[in-house]
Amino acid sequence: MNTPLKDSTQMRWDPILKIWTIVSPERGKRPGTFIPPVPDNPPQADGEICPFCHHSEISQGNVIYQAADPEKEYPWFVKVVPNRYPVFRIEGTVKRWNEGLYDIVEGVGAHEIVIDTPTCDLQFADISIKRRAEVLKAYRARILDLKKDVRFRHILIFKNHGSRAGAAMYHSHTQIVALPERPLNLQTMLSTSRDHFNRKERCLFCDVLRQERDGASRVVFEDDVYTAFVPFASSHPFELMVIPRRHAHDFSLSTDEELYSLSRVLGNVLQRLNKTLRNPPYNFVLITAPPQSPKLTRPDYWNSIEQDFHWHIRITPRITFNAGFEWGTGFSINPVRPEDAAAHLRNVRLIPE
Amino acid sequence: MNTPLKDSTQMRWDPILKIWTIVSPERGKRPGTFIPPVPDNPPQADGEICPFCHHSEISQGNVIYQAADPEKEYPWFVKVVPNRYPVFRIEGTVKRWNEGLYDIVEGVGAHEIVIDTPTCDLQFADISIKRRAEVLKAYRARILDLKKDVRFRHILIFKNHGSRAGAAMYHSHTQIVALPERPLNLQTMLSTSRDHFNRKERCLFCDVLRQERDGASRVVFEDDVYTAFVPFASSHPFELMVIPRRHAHDFSLSTDEELYSLSRVLGNVLQRLNKTLRNPPYNFVLITAPPQSPKLTRPDYWNSIEQDFHWHIRITPRITFNAGFEWGTGFSINPVRPEDAAAHLRNVRLIPE
Repeated sequence: MNTPLKDSTQMRWDPILKIWTIVSPERGKRPGTFIPPVPDNPPQADGEICPFCHHSEISQGNVIYQAADPEKEYPWFVKVVPNRYPVFRIEGTVKRWNEGLYDIVEGVGAHEIVIDTPTCDLQFADISIKRRAEVLKAYRARILDLKKDVRFRHILIFKNHGSRAGAAMYHSHTQIVALPERPLNLQTMLSTSRDHFNRKERCLFCDVLRQERDGASRVVFEDDVYTAFVPFASSHPFELMVIPRRHAHDFSLSTDEELYSLSRVLGNVLQRLNKTLRNPPYNFVLITAPPQSPKLTRPDYWNSIEQDFHWHIRITPRITFNAGFEWGTGFSINPVRPEDAAAHLRNVRLIPE
Repeated sequence: MNTPLKDSTQMRWDPILKIWTIVSPERGKRPGTFIPPVPDNPPQADGEICPFCHHSEISQGNVIYQAADPEKEYPWFVKVVPNRYPVFRIEGTVKRWNEGLYDIVEGVGAHEIVIDTPTCDLQFADISIKRRAEVLKAYRARILDLKKDVRFRHILIFKNHGSRAGAAMYHSHTQIVALPERPLNLQTMLSTSRDHFNRKERCLFCDVLRQERDGASRVVFEDDVYTAFVPFASSHPFELMVIPRRHAHDFSLSTDEELYSLSRVLGNVLQRLNKTLRNPPYNFVLITAPPQSPKLTRPDYWNSIEQDFHWHIRITPRITFNAGFEWGTGFSINPVRPEDAAAHLRNVRLIPE
């Protein structure tokens, strides 16, 4: 146990709680890790320069991906850059070992930032449908590229909006993390939906969607392609699930037309949340099938994931606290009935774009 | 799905994530549910009256338990009262049913508040060893009493200290919740430790403790009865586990002498945390064997839990945020190596009481 531990990121296995924790000293260097986060105002309001705005240095160097502005007003519409405080380093190989009861994975991975807009003045919910679709296309392009790296077991796309949801930057942005292990929640979903399919030859998510649409008491908005509803057992008030109505396991296979439609549905439901809860902080997580890992699995497994997994987005407003009860039990307390939350969100009148 | 849902607390099962959420409209009525919580100051500082101080109404009515002040300076040392905004109601029976894919438990339970001290001026970390031992005796007395109610599957004792850890009140207090289902985390621990014992005929927690004490790089403090260490895979920086060195599955069987010793160890490590992190907000959770439930289990199961489960306390400073990454993966990011956290905590010089 006195083995010197290096300064790199490690995933450590808790043999009691059966969870992985990522010990990442690099993240400790990030501004705001141990102090209350930035206020919910653009940096310009405090006389500072936003590092993500189109004229700053960060947004000019190290481009991983960018979408051009057709009007040429800005040098770009959407840009993807490396995170300066990555959870994992991109260089190296994955190492796996144990120390007595404990397991360790010395991780490599990718950590990128999607800068959603060239300026601070508009948030993801408020940009045009066309521009939001460009952000979704950036997600698709990055997943397709990162999937090629066989070291990665999953690619996670998420967004922290507002300081109380963990955002360290005001400027609208999304994070992409490629991981050397599959997330615990994803593993649960894969095994639950696998088990359901094996018994019934139906997709669990399709079944949930059908039950929600039959009842409609928790459906908030839908078009021909996507349905947005408040999950029956939402762990947080006003949580939303956005899911393709047609069975589809992999977000990165979405067409341009589908992404345009998704952009419209996301804009719609985020604006409903903003009106109902006065611009709440929220987390946004895109959950899609993990990349194929030929070393780990037989080919028939991958025939199957196409049948039994269903990609979706969870939007979680962060208006309540997780405290000792949640931490001690693993149960959440939601003080708003999902049916009531859905009714509030449906009743919002939006101005059509 | 259009069944009208009543105003009572429900536990709802998420068939995708395999979690229970507690939908508790009653909790939504609590002050501070949807707004930033109270400041970290005594109410007196803002010219208000603390409802938990010995002269207030709440602390005078509805006494469930109290410990007298031997000096008779205050009407009591420790007092247990019902929570005015309970997660569960105490009246009624547990009902279990399903709606299509979804499962529902209409819950009953208990929700009590331990008022740790008669006045606002001292926190749990700062009261005398003798007085803190009286608080621990109140926990023991309430567990022993609530265990008799066959409707309850678990009794959880936890503490939210500081507004950023979810405390709605400044006055030092602890919460006791009796639940109609076993917590997810407890179920994981029970099955992990059961599995370990079945394979090895040793307690998993005793094995972890032995490995920690052999290495000592994460041990912070110990006396003859308890060891406090920073867990190898701590999900939060500076997290601590306090565990009896002798194998013991049930906190409520602790002797007065053991509780006095535990009070000293808890005071010691909390004061170390306070010096290192300048009075951080923290959650404190006491994890002990669940009550016997004769309807559910065979007698030999209960012979076994005495062998394979080990009660302990987790103290989790809340100095980092859980955001989209943690929510999307189920992984935590800890930016401080547990070995470094333990070294910081060991290096604190305390004035002996």
